[in-house]
Amino acid sequence: MSPMPASLSEPRVGVWLIGARGSVATTVIAGCAALTAGLHPPTGMVTETSLFAECGLPTLSSLVFGGHDTVDCPLPKRAEALAAGGVLPPGLPSAIAAELEAADAEIRPGGPAPGDTRDDSELVDAFAADLRDFVRRRGLTRVVVLNVASTEPAPVGSALPPSSLYAAAALAAGCPYVNFTPSTGLHHPALASAARAARLPYAGRDGKTGQTLLRSVLGPMFAQRALAIRAWSGTNLLGGGDGASLADPAAAAAKNAGKERVLADTLGAAPQGEVHIDDVPALGDWKTAWDHIAFDGFLGTRMILQTTWQGCDSALAAPLVLDLARLVSRAHEAGLSGPLSELGFYFKDPVGDGPAALGEQYAALAGFALRLRALPGETR
Amino acid sequence: MSPMPASLSEPRVGVWLIGARGSVATTVIAGCAALTAGLHPPTGMVTETSLFAECGLPTLSSLVFGGHDTVDCPLPKRAEALAAGGVLPPGLPSAIAAELEAADAEIRPGGPAPGDTRDDSELVDAFAADLRDFVRRRGLTRVVVLNVASTEPAPVGSALPPSSLYAAAALAAGCPYVNFTPSTGLHHPALASAARAARLPYAGRDGKTGQTLLRSVLGPMFAQRALAIRAWSGTNLLGGGDGASLADPAAAAAKNAGKERVLADTLGAAPQGEVHIDDVPALGDWKTAWDHIAFDGFLGTRMILQTTWQGCDSALAAPLVLDLARLVSRAHEAGLSGPLSELGFYFKDPVGDGPAALGEQYAALAGFALRLRALPGETR
Amino acid sequence: MSPMPASLSEPRVGVWLIGARGSVATTVIAGCAALTAGLHPPTGMVTETSLFAECGLPTLSSLVFGGHDTVDCPLPKRAEALAAGGVLPPGLPSAIAAELEAADAEIRPGGPAPGDTRDDSELVDAFAADLRDFVRRRGLTRVVVLNVASTEPAPVGSALPPSSLYAAAALAAGCPYVNFTPSTGLHHPALASAARAARLPYAGRDGKTGQTLLRSVLGPMFAQRALAIRAWSGTNLLGGGDGASLADPAAAAAKNAGKERVLADTLGAAPQGEVHIDDVPALGDWKTAWDHIAFDGFLGTRMILQTTWQGCDSALAAPLVLDLARLVSRAHEAGLSGPLSELGFYFKDPVGDGPAALGEQYAALAGFALRLRALPGETR
Amino acid sequence: MSPMPASLSEPRVGVWLIGARGSVATTVIAGCAALTAGLHPPTGMVTETSLFAECGLPTLSSLVFGGHDTVDCPLPKRAEALAAGGVLPPGLPSAIAAELEAADAEIRPGGPAPGDTRDDSELVDAFAADLRDFVRRRGLTRVVVLNVASTEPAPVGSALPPSSLYAAAALAAGCPYVNFTPSTGLHHPALASAARAARLPYAGRDGKTGQTLLRSVLGPMFAQRALAIRAWSGTNLLGGGDGASLADPAAAAAKNAGKERVLADTLGAAPQGEVHIDDVPALGDWKTAWDHIAFDGFLGTRMILQTTWQGCDSALAAPLVLDLARLVSRAHEAGLSGPLSELGFYFKDPVGDGPAALGEQYAALAGFALRLRALPGETR
Repeated sequence: MSPMPASLSEPRVGVWLIGARGSVATTVIAGCAALTAGLHPPTGMVTETSLFAECGLPTLSSLVFGGHDTVDCPLPKRAEALAAGGVLPPGLPSAIAAELEAADAEIRPGGPAPGDTRDDSELVDAFAADLRDFVRRRGLTRVVVLNVASTEPAPVGSALPPSSLYAAAALAAGCPYVNFTPSTGLHHPALASAARAARLPYAGRDGKTGQTLLRSVLGPMFAQRALAIRAWSGTNLLGGGDGASLADPAAAAAKNAGKERVLADTLGAAPQGEVHIDDVPALGDWKTAWDHIAFDGFLGTRMILQTTWQGCDSALAAPLVLDLARLVSRAHEAGLSGPLSELGFYFKDPVGDGPAALGEQYAALAGFALRLRALPGETR
Repeated sequence: MSPMPASLSEPRVGVWLIGARGSVATTVIAGCAALTAGLHPPTGMVTETSLFAECGLPTLSSLVFGGHDTVDCPLPKRAEALAAGGVLPPGLPSAIAAELEAADAEIRPGGPAPGDTRDDSELVDAFAADLRDFVRRRGLTRVVVLNVASTEPAPVGSALPPSSLYAAAALAAGCPYVNFTPSTGLHHPALASAARAARLPYAGRDGKTGQTLLRSVLGPMFAQRALAIRAWSGTNLLGGGDGASLADPAAAAAKNAGKERVLADTLGAAPQGEVHIDDVPALGDWKTAWDHIAFDGFLGTRMILQTTWQGCDSALAAPLVLDLARLVSRAHEAGLSGPLSELGFYFKDPVGDGPAALGEQYAALAGFALRLRALPGETR
Repeated sequence: MSPMPASLSEPRVGVWLIGARGSVATTVIAGCAALTAGLHPPTGMVTETSLFAECGLPTLSSLVFGGHDTVDCPLPKRAEALAAGGVLPPGLPSAIAAELEAADAEIRPGGPAPGDTRDDSELVDAFAADLRDFVRRRGLTRVVVLNVASTEPAPVGSALPPSSLYAAAALAAGCPYVNFTPSTGLHHPALASAARAARLPYAGRDGKTGQTLLRSVLGPMFAQRALAIRAWSGTNLLGGGDGASLADPAAAAAKNAGKERVLADTLGAAPQGEVHIDDVPALGDWKTAWDHIAFDGFLGTRMILQTTWQGCDSALAAPLVLDLARLVSRAHEAGLSGPLSELGFYFKDPVGDGPAALGEQYAALAGFALRLRALPGETR
Repeated sequence: MSPMPASLSEPRVGVWLIGARGSVATTVIAGCAALTAGLHPPTGMVTETSLFAECGLPTLSSLVFGGHDTVDCPLPKRAEALAAGGVLPPGLPSAIAAELEAADAEIRPGGPAPGDTRDDSELVDAFAADLRDFVRRRGLTRVVVLNVASTEPAPVGSALPPSSLYAAAALAAGCPYVNFTPSTGLHHPALASAARAARLPYAGRDGKTGQTLLRSVLGPMFAQRALAIRAWSGTNLLGGGDGASLADPAAAAAKNAGKERVLADTLGAAPQGEVHIDDVPALGDWKTAWDHIAFDGFLGTRMILQTTWQGCDSALAAPLVLDLARLVSRAHEAGLSGPLSELGFYFKDPVGDGPAALGEQYAALAGFALRLRALPGETR
């Protein structure tokens, strides 16, 4: 499982992160460097398991990072802050300072910034130009665009939210697109025909990292055992940027829709019970999710399952983002297009048709690996 | 899903319970009567879901109950005690008093009782005679023997433990056998050749009802996500007969082996951590299971999942026992023999070869349903 | 601790419950009858412990129940529903049917009902007349009025909410008053001068039964140990009438104010963190409260305490209500008036000045017991 | 609350730690240096709250550390390991390297080491000589000896365990003694007459840091509310040296006795339920304690409280050890002798007579502060 250095002739693949200075993006970039340097095992990366051997995925060392962001804090400084908060190992930021600086040099201003006078099409053009410039300067074979920015409020009206502007730019620049957030992205009606015409693969949306990951195995368990869920309630406590952005009820609503969809899909109907997302700044990037599940057993006996999940969201998301960058790059190389429904394993609200139970999603992913193994690639 | 009354011509199937006056058996018998009478929906019974439509399973109303036990407390009285403890709904014992009395009349003394002078082969003969007598008097097409007695200590030496005497009697009487406990039963070397020669189907062992059920979905989740388990610890608190018998360290060891096997099988190796089973008489038949799972995420980030399961063991076990009685009866009718590995869904330590993850076990069970649909039966 | 029958000459004391057909009131009335009949020990009643021996409290058998309510469901039927939900023991309602019917006959219509044309002073007069009538017909020495109705929304403007109309009626009829809810009651500015003039004892408000009870011992623990609370978050899940009424954000806000006050008072400042109250009808009268407390230890080490409380609110409240009825009756008998600050043990938001830590409140209550022992009474 | 530098004339007080290279001792020494340098606030130290203002306690900067240990790992290296495990803040060991080295230079070999040929009295003499040498070389006014070594198995027979040898040495050298562990220490019958004759103050035993701290506030809560505990069960998961030493059943038994005593003392009787201590090396110095408390409410309603405590034992213990060193030094200065029962706040199994509820123990401690304020001291 130890990553190999990129051979001189291995094509280089761009990974373009929307929200490139956020916690998730910083952990992705730092983590890829740490793994390439052999400092840590690839815990949490499914593409580093034997399932994906011989599938022609780009190596970790062939990945080149860049992205858009609206904030200025340089990646090395952001990484130090994450290390202080226990998200990155102490000492890692200095060990991989060169890689952080290299990625930081490839981050371009996002938008629209406050006071920005550019209209939507000007913004899309600017973002697409950034992508084409990245390809040209770095000699990349292809670039995958991944949205890992904070959740934006569910849009009202027909205006394109920022996430959709970035998605349109990916289409314009011929880049496959992955939406790791519940934001609109490619799902906007105004982008539908362009998305079809582009014949690019895409995946999303809303990475399944913690409470919903659990729900995607517990929901099927109750359904398969014919146990009747009476109520499923949940509370999430988190700080960091994600906590603050989800304190906005509109953003929280977008997030919760995905959580509830998993239950409705696996149980057959949405049960009673609410989901709360509390911004608790003191918790930093650490998230605690408590679920309380009241269910009926035989003859109406009342039983309860409670789960408490204490995790670091960025550390849970980062290996999935690296997996997705590699998988979608490989799909693009192999000429696949449209929704990659076999990647439902990674998402709360997967594109295309596919199962909602994690076990079945894993089987679909394994099938995708087999399919990739048989598909042509430039390097094989 | 409402059970139909048995047609006049429908063959009757015997369900012979070892430990027939225990909490599980009483809940099985009372529950079957309650469902047949339309008093409760069949919550927890997988054989009542659409998966098993048209599979030729015996109806609930065709089941006739009997069994062995070493205690005297009549079933109606036992049922009243369970209702007082909240295991059975208040009022149910009186509503189905006739069925409880009918089953109680078919319970024969188990053994060996203290001071019993019969040797093993005499005991086996006596138990087998009880089974043949049950068939004859009640006009049964077949009888399934199910062990739902308290866990017995892991045997030392070559002597046959009681559970194996009952299993030998089932073989002698030509009855398929299901071991719902971690006791030895048919797994004794001395029974191996007789078991092969009998060409009967069998299933087991150790019903998967609570903490281990959870582990069989959580273990695969961690494995599929390539997350590294650092330690998995658990404590079970329970009263009732099961709590008392598991207070015996040898019985607890037998029970725990199954729990740990599920983790080792789904995670690839047994993690650090112990499992405790505490007898807490004040909790009666209610069981609380706490699990603490320490795992590593990306870059070694330390995370924790805790689960607390509060359930009634008898109510969790009873629908599975009814499922198994129907499935194994149907397998026998269809001429299947040997270990029914497709029933691993129900067990901690399944016979035959099969997956350890609940989702895959459910898929195997669904395959079994399809197979049954195509197999001949007397009634089809 | 076994209750004695009322001697023929013992004065009878009225207990007038606002919300007399609710879960709490029904449990109070049924419980008092069950204890008087010797069917159950007085678990949860502090006034039945040795602390209050020789304090001259009215006996349980001397209490006569009545009250106001706006709903019609008779107490015996309400008690059956509570028994079906596990709040009252099965069989209790029929065992004490006579007492439930007697109390039901003393319940008068509350108000204002929808379409009620009476103005505030007419309603107060009518309620006060009900109280005087109760005293006269039943030959009572005194009547304590206790509000155990559902929480009403925090009032806007100067209009008297219903709880204050009942409190005004108590003043008018010369009855001591206890507010077991967060509703306004006697705390309305318009009642301030009448309350002072009445020279009656009063107590409140908002009974401390579950999550806040815990907080009143955990908060002091952290403070005494000089540990720094970083965030204290909580979620309450409950069904029943209380769940439904607290689903109203205004009512929940009134409730939460009390919960937060306990933390602010014991910790010195209100910590980060929210409190949620979810209406989960499936849970009935059972409440689950989860608290997550993030705190700093020595050198900033981050630690966490979580608590999960699963209780039946009516069963937690009822013995406190009986305690309060007896204590406030005795205070009235002894000529005490004004806020009974020694009863802070029972409340989230106590009247008068007193400590917020439960242990200190218990010491104050013990001091009150000593004081009562020395005070004159009609019966001593 | 910021610590002041020791004035030139302030007497210096020795703090002699048995187990001076363990996690607790290292955290004590590093923490005192960090606080003296103003790097951290004194979280967790009660002696730094206003309660102890003007009580004449020695300042933190006046404390001089030394001790006995049987292991060689130097304190600076031990501190680095603790920082890597998250017990000490990253960067602290290097910031206070000089203080760690100074303390390390005062650590003398403990015993008996394997193969040690010295008999008990030779060992006691050697340890006492170490203490006298420490006083002389460092010019100390007095030395407090505190046992913070790993729990030793409950002794069998009359042989003096190591903890008692160190205690005897403290007596011989005229040093007050504090036992922060459940080990025997001064509680050995063979030391009884010497202890009386020495007229020194002493305190102990077994620091109350986590699960038992919680129990000392929850037990009184249930008792004061007259709620009936049906069963109180607990599981502790911990790694580090303490986890390993408590994996020895005899050591665990010594530890558990203290935990159960707190429940028996606050509830009036020991409830049903066991306590487990599991060695889980993966958890390092972090401890998780789960408690499950089944209790009866009014009319026998069954309710449950669960608590999960996740803390770092060394960080919980260290501020208490510093408190005790200062308090016992001051007591010695003031001429107090014998068991300091007012320090029960700190212990699971306090010496002398005193309350078991934390709130009452805090009141006793506050009384002790008042008493100290009035007592003479060399510096006042």
